Amino acid sequence: MLARRMSRVAPSAIMELIKTTAAGDYISFASGLPDPALYPVERLRQIGDEVLARDGRGALQYGAAEGYAPLRAWVAEMLRRRGLPAAPEQILITTGSQQALDVAARAFLDPGDRVVIESPSYLAALQAFDSHEADYLPVPLDECGLATDALPAALAGGPKLLYLLPNFQNPTGITMTAERRQAAAELAVQAGTALVEDDAYHDLRYDGEPLPPVCALADNPWSVYTGTFSKTVAPGLRVGYLWGPPALVERLAQLKQITDLHTGSFTQRVVFEYCARGYLEPGIEALQGSYRRRRDVLLEALEQRLAGVVKWTRPHGGMFLFVTLPEGRDAGELLRRAMERGVVFVPGASFHPDGRGRNTFRLNFVSADEPKIREGIGILAAVLREWLA
Amino acid sequence: MLARRMSRVAPSAIMELIKTTAAGDYISFASGLPDPALYPVERLRQIGDEVLARDGRGALQYGAAEGYAPLRAWVAEMLRRRGLPAAPEQILITTGSQQALDVAARAFLDPGDRVVIESPSYLAALQAFDSHEADYLPVPLDECGLATDALPAALAGGPKLLYLLPNFQNPTGITMTAERRQAAAELAVQAGTALVEDDAYHDLRYDGEPLPPVCALADNPWSVYTGTFSKTVAPGLRVGYLWGPPALVERLAQLKQITDLHTGSFTQRVVFEYCARGYLEPGIEALQGSYRRRRDVLLEALEQRLAGVVKWTRPHGGMFLFVTLPEGRDAGELLRRAMERGVVFVPGASFHPDGRGRNTFRLNFVSADEPKIREGIGILAAVLREWLA
Repeated sequence: MLARRMSRVAPSAIMELIKTTAAGDYISFASGLPDPALYPVERLRQIGDEVLARDGRGALQYGAAEGYAPLRAWVAEMLRRRGLPAAPEQILITTGSQQALDVAARAFLDPGDRVVIESPSYLAALQAFDSHEADYLPVPLDECGLATDALPAALAGGPKLLYLLPNFQNPTGITMTAERRQAAAELAVQAGTALVEDDAYHDLRYDGEPLPPVCALADNPWSVYTGTFSKTVAPGLRVGYLWGPPALVERLAQLKQITDLHTGSFTQRVVFEYCARGYLEPGIEALQGSYRRRRDVLLEALEQRLAGVVKWTRPHGGMFLFVTLPEGRDAGELLRRAMERGVVFVPGASFHPDGRGRNTFRLNFVSADEPKIREGIGILAAVLREWLA
Repeated sequence: MLARRMSRVAPSAIMELIKTTAAGDYISFASGLPDPALYPVERLRQIGDEVLARDGRGALQYGAAEGYAPLRAWVAEMLRRRGLPAAPEQILITTGSQQALDVAARAFLDPGDRVVIESPSYLAALQAFDSHEADYLPVPLDECGLATDALPAALAGGPKLLYLLPNFQNPTGITMTAERRQAAAELAVQAGTALVEDDAYHDLRYDGEPLPPVCALADNPWSVYTGTFSKTVAPGLRVGYLWGPPALVERLAQLKQITDLHTGSFTQRVVFEYCARGYLEPGIEALQGSYRRRRDVLLEALEQRLAGVVKWTRPHGGMFLFVTLPEGRDAGELLRRAMERGVVFVPGASFHPDGRGRNTFRLNFVSADEPKIREGIGILAAVLREWLA
């Protein structure tokens, strides 16, 4: 009875793992959850109160599919600072950036359409593409990001979509270099391939200078750039956004309206006020400080305990790093052993549509605090050395 | 470049009309907007403040795709009172009931699948079905609801889905009788057709006793019942829900997760507290009182000004009634004339996938207050009589 697409919709291994371990006393490197102790609860509380006091009727009424006009304008200004030529009408406010990805996928993908992806890539984007019955053309990643020398071959047949996550990629933490960004932008235009650029982690940069969005580097009429306030304000508000050429954004807004009419009027106003009052920048700086220290603690612990045993990435931002076991080893088996000792992480095969990456796994470094990170890596290292021996 | 489904995604005539008239000084019978003066701003303000004070981290964190557990349990209890055998795991919290309809459509419909609809039907549901490339089997409505004697013929070929809006239907305001509900429920099961029952207006009943949901009247493993807090608390919070058999709800939750991960954690808690503290029932009673008076004023004004000239429905609840012009007349032409005099409404052809219903139109009776309703109908009647003469 269900539509054919539902054969490609299934619970993710990550969600199952998180559910399984939610009740237990685990040190978790598994989730994608930020640390809620860092959420600006009191500021949002004050703003929520003021928004309802001053504009309660507007905040509780239906709104435009495109989003709350002041927030669209604010996001446009923010994206101009990132290098995108963004006018307010090029912004669509979405119910988190997951909806931005899903709406873009739904607008572009017919069954069997091919999507060029980084290998590995973001699981929930793959799930959205899966639900639209996409086929995949995986392109390897190295420490400089997507291997653009392999991109012309992938783009040769004119696939529908190129999906990139250039900053602090989930799951690897890798950042794409400026040269690679330029090459990818130009190659997509030449191939007539749409570009979806996922920049959810943009502001969580701990080293170095921001690099321009791929969408800013070539004039692709079929480009969509997605972002979110989930990592910088709070995910529970469900406010994200996308950018694109005006004509495309108009079409995406029509589709967004079908999915949920519009994103919450109240929460959009809360996010706007938080940004407009100047809380976003210092909030980001505080997060950067905390997360940078946690990343450094994780890297230090790995260096102390596992140097020469396994390899890992050294992210300049974001929430994750990626570990590679010796060839032929299965991270799923390691997970079973680690869970017995109270430590969880996500095996890398989850981030591939075809079961590759069995000897890899992802570690989150923002959920646990510094002592827990040290303790967890201590346990993981002991389990790993014992298992490999 | 866009997916084939996008050829069926377009701006609705209603949204265009609302945008066109938003800035002007119109008396509007066009929108589906409740009167924001009736929103419980102060209560929601107090609750929002307390939720963030007491459970700020939870309210701002990611949540389960299925929804906030206490709200699921509360909705289950509410639906049991409506006659549905509802356990908490049969409830999926959605980002408004629009998302419930869209997720159900996405789960059931392959391109070319046939959907049996009331003729006319709810525009935004048709838009969701359109976006999944549905075909339609329209069945007429009369004053008792869907003409179930025409249903066996429509169900003969085993269409995929039957979409019903039995209470105070949008756009007609018609309520389906108990006998018709029973017949529709049984016929759908016999035909092996999935049932989507949209009960967005359930609590806005101004006369008579509630009737059982169609989903409660036969054991259909492919049934989905949708509802919302948009009409009874506030639409700007974007909190709705669906009910179904547990196995189906599990699948729909997987799909919902792909669309936006989950509905807002903060707003779900606000709605839950509003309900759990006992504010929902008195709030509904207050709305019923206001909207009943407005309906009565509209009916009275129509009776005084247009008896014998046009026909209209007499709804027992909801937000709309439906007017039928003499055969051969085009409500679009009437709208152009009425707009020149500052009155807007929605021509009925918008509620049909095939351009029928040109001699009908919809009047909303909850957006404008009583004096405006009288004034607007006075103008409309003058325009109408002049045009028909």
